Amino acid sequence: MPSFLFYLRRSRHRHHFRLLHDRRSSTAGTSPLRIPLTHPTYLVWSANTSLGKTLVSTGLAFSSLLDRSVPAKFLYLKPVQTGFPVDSDSLFLFNKLYSLSLVHRPRLPLHSSHYVLQSSLSASNSFYNSLPGTSLDASSPLRLPGCASGMVKLNSYEEKRVLDKVGGSSRVSELISKTIFAYNEAVSPHLAAEREGGVVEDSMVVEMVGSCLREGLEAESEEREVMCVVETAGGVASPSPSGTLQCDLYRPLRLPAILVGDGRLGGISATISAYESLILRGYDVAAVVFEDHGLVNEVPIMSYLRKRVPVLVLPQIPQDPSNDLIEWFEDSRGVFNSLRNIMHSSYEEKMQKLLHMRKKAKDKFWWPFTQHGLVPEECVTVIDSRCGESFAVFKDTKDRSITQMFDACASWWTQGPDATLQTELARDMGYAAARYGHVMFPENVHEPALECAELLLDGVGKGWASRVYFSENGSTAIEIALKMAFRRFAVDHGILSDTLMGVKDDKQTELIVLALQGSYHGDTLGAMEAQSPSAYTSFLQQPWYTGRGLFLDPPTVFLSKSIWTLEVPEPLHPKILESELIFSSREEMFSKSRDESELTQLYSSYILQHLPGIGGPKYIGALIIEPVIQGAGGMRMVDPLFHRVLVKECRNRRIPVIFDEVFTGFWRLGAECGAELLGVEPDIACYAKLLTGGIIPLAATLASAEIFDAFMGESKLNALLHGHSYTAHAMGCTAAVKSIKWFKHPEINSNINAEVKLLNELWDIKLVNQLSNHPAVQRVIALGTLFAMELQVDGNNNNGYGSLFSKALLQMLRDDGIYVRPLGNVVYLMCGPCTSPEICSRLLTKLYHNLDEFHGLQSNDEIMGIVG
Amino acid sequence: MPSFLFYLRRSRHRHHFRLLHDRRSSTAGTSPLRIPLTHPTYLVWSANTSLGKTLVSTGLAFSSLLDRSVPAKFLYLKPVQTGFPVDSDSLFLFNKLYSLSLVHRPRLPLHSSHYVLQSSLSASNSFYNSLPGTSLDASSPLRLPGCASGMVKLNSYEEKRVLDKVGGSSRVSELISKTIFAYNEAVSPHLAAEREGGVVEDSMVVEMVGSCLREGLEAESEEREVMCVVETAGGVASPSPSGTLQCDLYRPLRLPAILVGDGRLGGISATISAYESLILRGYDVAAVVFEDHGLVNEVPIMSYLRKRVPVLVLPQIPQDPSNDLIEWFEDSRGVFNSLRNIMHSSYEEKMQKLLHMRKKAKDKFWWPFTQHGLVPEECVTVIDSRCGESFAVFKDTKDRSITQMFDACASWWTQGPDATLQTELARDMGYAAARYGHVMFPENVHEPALECAELLLDGVGKGWASRVYFSENGSTAIEIALKMAFRRFAVDHGILSDTLMGVKDDKQTELIVLALQGSYHGDTLGAMEAQSPSAYTSFLQQPWYTGRGLFLDPPTVFLSKSIWTLEVPEPLHPKILESELIFSSREEMFSKSRDESELTQLYSSYILQHLPGIGGPKYIGALIIEPVIQGAGGMRMVDPLFHRVLVKECRNRRIPVIFDEVFTGFWRLGAECGAELLGVEPDIACYAKLLTGGIIPLAATLASAEIFDAFMGESKLNALLHGHSYTAHAMGCTAAVKSIKWFKHPEINSNINAEVKLLNELWDIKLVNQLSNHPAVQRVIALGTLFAMELQVDGNNNNGYGSLFSKALLQMLRDDGIYVRPLGNVVYLMCGPCTSPEICSRLLTKLYHNLDEFHGLQSNDEIMGIVG
Repeated sequence: MPSFLFYLRRSRHRHHFRLLHDRRSSTAGTSPLRIPLTHPTYLVWSANTSLGKTLVSTGLAFSSLLDRSVPAKFLYLKPVQTGFPVDSDSLFLFNKLYSLSLVHRPRLPLHSSHYVLQSSLSASNSFYNSLPGTSLDASSPLRLPGCASGMVKLNSYEEKRVLDKVGGSSRVSELISKTIFAYNEAVSPHLAAEREGGVVEDSMVVEMVGSCLREGLEAESEEREVMCVVETAGGVASPSPSGTLQCDLYRPLRLPAILVGDGRLGGISATISAYESLILRGYDVAAVVFEDHGLVNEVPIMSYLRKRVPVLVLPQIPQDPSNDLIEWFEDSRGVFNSLRNIMHSSYEEKMQKLLHMRKKAKDKFWWPFTQHGLVPEECVTVIDSRCGESFAVFKDTKDRSITQMFDACASWWTQGPDATLQTELARDMGYAAARYGHVMFPENVHEPALECAELLLDGVGKGWASRVYFSENGSTAIEIALKMAFRRFAVDHGILSDTLMGVKDDKQTELIVLALQGSYHGDTLGAMEAQSPSAYTSFLQQPWYTGRGLFLDPPTVFLSKSIWTLEVPEPLHPKILESELIFSSREEMFSKSRDESELTQLYSSYILQHLPGIGGPKYIGALIIEPVIQGAGGMRMVDPLFHRVLVKECRNRRIPVIFDEVFTGFWRLGAECGAELLGVEPDIACYAKLLTGGIIPLAATLASAEIFDAFMGESKLNALLHGHSYTAHAMGCTAAVKSIKWFKHPEINSNINAEVKLLNELWDIKLVNQLSNHPAVQRVIALGTLFAMELQVDGNNNNGYGSLFSKALLQMLRDDGIYVRPLGNVVYLMCGPCTSPEICSRLLTKLYHNLDEFHGLQSNDEIMGIVG
Repeated sequence: MPSFLFYLRRSRHRHHFRLLHDRRSSTAGTSPLRIPLTHPTYLVWSANTSLGKTLVSTGLAFSSLLDRSVPAKFLYLKPVQTGFPVDSDSLFLFNKLYSLSLVHRPRLPLHSSHYVLQSSLSASNSFYNSLPGTSLDASSPLRLPGCASGMVKLNSYEEKRVLDKVGGSSRVSELISKTIFAYNEAVSPHLAAEREGGVVEDSMVVEMVGSCLREGLEAESEEREVMCVVETAGGVASPSPSGTLQCDLYRPLRLPAILVGDGRLGGISATISAYESLILRGYDVAAVVFEDHGLVNEVPIMSYLRKRVPVLVLPQIPQDPSNDLIEWFEDSRGVFNSLRNIMHSSYEEKMQKLLHMRKKAKDKFWWPFTQHGLVPEECVTVIDSRCGESFAVFKDTKDRSITQMFDACASWWTQGPDATLQTELARDMGYAAARYGHVMFPENVHEPALECAELLLDGVGKGWASRVYFSENGSTAIEIALKMAFRRFAVDHGILSDTLMGVKDDKQTELIVLALQGSYHGDTLGAMEAQSPSAYTSFLQQPWYTGRGLFLDPPTVFLSKSIWTLEVPEPLHPKILESELIFSSREEMFSKSRDESELTQLYSSYILQHLPGIGGPKYIGALIIEPVIQGAGGMRMVDPLFHRVLVKECRNRRIPVIFDEVFTGFWRLGAECGAELLGVEPDIACYAKLLTGGIIPLAATLASAEIFDAFMGESKLNALLHGHSYTAHAMGCTAAVKSIKWFKHPEINSNINAEVKLLNELWDIKLVNQLSNHPAVQRVIALGTLFAMELQVDGNNNNGYGSLFSKALLQMLRDDGIYVRPLGNVVYLMCGPCTSPEICSRLLTKLYHNLDEFHGLQSNDEIMGIVG
């Protein structure tokens, strides 16, 4: 061990100070966020202000850099600092590490640097004024490109070195201490930012942290042990410069957390509540650490945490402000070393988990709709989390990272929330689970179920529905709807000679549905029986399927080469005029004035010639359609006029009308439901997917009073004897209540056009038209939150759902940060009802670029022109 | 307005002080908790200690009693006080109100009383020592019945009166200020209680608060406006005397909350986190109020709350300790009046909601399995919340209240959590929703799904299952299982000539299931097709039902007159010996040694004579059974030996075996699954209900490697093309992970017998036998968490599911705090895997009592003897 003298002799101190003016522009908001996972990186949170976050960060730096014999690197980021330059946590850490490096032994070589990147004007002025002999004029701030609006590029830089005799850089430990945004006033960041005119957008803060992390961690060789902490300001829920709570601000990063708790009287509660705020935002807390105040707060805190999270207690911090804390840091070495070890092993554990997830998934899951033989392990997507419309995906490339991908399949069309609604829903889920868990529904009532029913009857069911039947998914909602419809039909048409016993008057009597080819209503047998034969319904898939329906081939509409076009089934070809096959606009296509056209008559007779005679033994007991668009059938838009005519003809024959709005409901197509777009009302309608905002399974079957009345009677056996365990479960209903209100509220959802009760156009018409003109594209549908296009394929690739033709395009889009999942040759993008049109345009532009490249690969033709 | 002089002259002051020794014993834990809803009653919480909770309570008392012209009553409860007698919030409020009443004008007559009910010994000593001239010997504390263990009955009482000239009592305002449990040390209650030997059980605290509320509120006439506040100690999550966090301790009361926030630097975060801890426990926060510190904390807090909760700001509190605050209270009048108004109108709103819920429910819901015509409005149960195994139900009697009812139907057999697990699950739900919401599953992996799959394969699927297929409810899990089984069967038996296209080799080929009469597998068509004809499957209910199965009549077992008895189907009657119809114990019945008995041979030939010949056209493509007990079929226990023989015979014929464990899974029957009880393994098994602890819908179909392999191939069309939107949703999987671990962990679930991997007996055998001997009872089943009994009925009432015979018993049990929901004539009690045997015994005892009364009504016979 070197003597103290020797130690001093060896060290040479250098001290630089300069101002940097880099021109690296911010990329906030344009490319998907990427967070390196190459080294342990933590967010340091605190239960309140002044609990010693910075001391913990400093202690960790001390432990990483000085308290061990191997070279290491420590990256400290303070994204938001107030009270600057008097208060500067990054400077404190920088200076303290230097002091510690001078007295700690054995002394290790250390290269430290300190940065302050951007500041408000007043913080910049104070900073310059605090510098000895600065000649810069405070009135001419440095406003440079890439700087947050209202902020100036301070770019102060300072470095200190403690060298060993060799001076080689590879074995040198390194400290980088960085403040990103600094404000002058010693108040909450939102106040400081507002008062100093330096409100920074959340995306900018997050992207700056991301780029500092990438810069600081990714180029790092494997020789040095590296650790990074990002220290928040104030308490976990203290506002950021924009006013967003910090726990929400940093959520897209979802770095694991260290919580600095409170050891004082009241500190148990403060620590636990802060912990819960982090949990409620999906953070993982790796450790809780706090200063001892002699109250053994660790006992109840550990008991609360049930040993899931380690709790560490630091020695009491000297109160005397003149104390340099050197002794305290030395006394705390054991705790900091433990904490550092916990952070390293927790990181290793997480990495091991992430690295093995794909193989385990391949071994243990049975994915729906998936030929496991066609999914190589490396193609399995590891989803670490979701934030609003995007997945955070683990990328096992050389520079391991978590990268954001836009969930363009809306996770099987369920998704609606942006990040804000997701946080709200998470809190609501905690509340509903705590208040109700799940409670028995029949003959009972609870608030969320009632409020949900009221909202449904006053929203999608307005004007026609009088009852709500809850179940758990779309398929069951359909099965319930069929039972409802058949009962009403049987009662109306005298099919039941003895309703109580359910005896048919004729052994031959058979009830079937009227439905459309290409329809899809779910995967349970009853739902399948109501859809036309397809790959889904083969004997191979469901030996019990018989297809109990009359399945009409519907006329469809689509956008092709900028023109909305009608395509009618074969039998109608000779009877239709060329002019009727083209629309001037999508609006014209939906217009109710078409009800007076000749086409209406044509559709009517087309339908009637297929209906069986009235009187049995085969009855059409229900009409079932997906209004406007057939989803799983390949995003086919049926001529709205045809749907209206169908409904009218069935109603004339007292055939109950079922709308399957599982896919089309809740703004998916730009109106609150498909029925609204069509302008006709069903007798029964089914909702699921977006009903809860996409957070939790729940389904509802709405019915008119006439339908309900068919089940009234003296006996329980007359009632609808169908039910599911979690019918009207409180969490589902709570999520639905929040989402239904959220989506339709014009003050909350800026996409809502309150006047016409429609979503504003989300897909830029120019881009949509350009795509519809692309040679690789056969047809396009753009409506509400849906953009879909069918690829132009030759005969070999035209085998529908089983087609793998789009596979290359899929991979290209995924590599470009868009998670798509095609339906055979139909590639679609789906956003949420609150997604901004800017995001949609960005998606369409990327789609166009990738389509071009894909088309080039396919056709070996020249790359086509690029969208503007 | 009276002059000040006149005012002084009018008042006469009285001041009494005495010690009360009431003998009212505590009823903690014996009768269901009842909380009056007759007047606005609030819990006052705080974001931390010393934020002025008591000042807020005092301000509210001031506003209620003195700042208005009508007589009123204010009840203040401080359940837990530390630092006593130096600190006494109830005394502070009592004294301050008196001081305020002297100076406030116009002065109103006021009768104030102050109580301290129980205290620790050292608090009692300090208290006596602080009294002038007390002769009581501190070494002989007053330990009286009804006192919490380690506590003494202090029962101090003090009163002060300010009278008007009339002195009539009806128009007098009244203040009752009460401390329930007092401790001496000024530390957190858990420390004080421990150090002073006065740890009070949670149930005792809650019941004492409940009884103080009933006493203080229920007898109250409607003439006076009444308000009550219950003030907590420290922060929202500060520990109670037992160490339980206060927000958990008071949860069974679920009184609406007033949150005293923090106006200081860091206070935004502290206030929001405290709010979230309350929300995470299902509390409703009516208002947030805090002291102004010039930081406008209300702005971000209001923004966070999105106007859902009013935020009020109090003037800064004078720092000088000699300040009597009289002026401050006068200055704060406006705020306190606003707060009081908010509390009153929020209460009124809640009452209006509760009072109208039943009618609205009747008008808007379509309850499953319910003949709406048979449910009068007054029979609709209004469930305000759940806490562990109990509902909190709104009772619209004269003394409106919230009363606890044991959920003995386990909400359609889904429930497992006690209050602690419910809180844990609520936090997990918030976390999972925040981290994932829901994310796309096929070809992807996320942590909760993987961990859930691993736990399932290592638990209920151990030894046989290799894959997990997720869906959303039991019915879909069954439909998936059938598709899996049929594919394996078709491949094994050469039924598919061309597997890719799904073409059968013979148009006549038909696959059916082998199942048992009385079986039930769900309400979707596929699940129904696999069950025997019943009221559920009539043409009336499902015109598409044909019953695609061979349905055998199974031998059943039950307890009758203390003896486990076997009942075999008709064809076996002549062949069976009397001695084989009786078991010495339930264990003997389950014993595998019976496999060697003659009965095995008998069962075997009974089964074989019903099977169709091998070779089609009708094939039995799957066996499907509910292992051990048929649930919806009426809690019928099938002879375990018969189940084993069935499985063996099917396996011999390469018929895939499906276990429907939707009801029987996860400790429902005392083992982790029914298969374990039977001692045989299926090829496919379905789980739902208790899988998530009963908090959220999720289902899983487990399959062996052989089953999975039948779906492997070159084409996607070969895969199982079945899926549901929320497959493997993160919240469901997260809940399952927590529950599966929780239930089976012997250190967490004290009911687990780790050695034999079974639940300890929950239903007291003596009581069970007594019930099995009751003349009103035909048969009994007691196994795991289930106790069921079939009522003895005459022919007229024996119409199965439609029977209303048990209706009177049902109402009696509900009135007695047990929520039962019979299956026809079968009445059952179902607890959770963690429910204590004591609770089960209490339920059985109550059942016996009520059964006696019911039987008396039915038979007009003498009331039978009462259980011990």
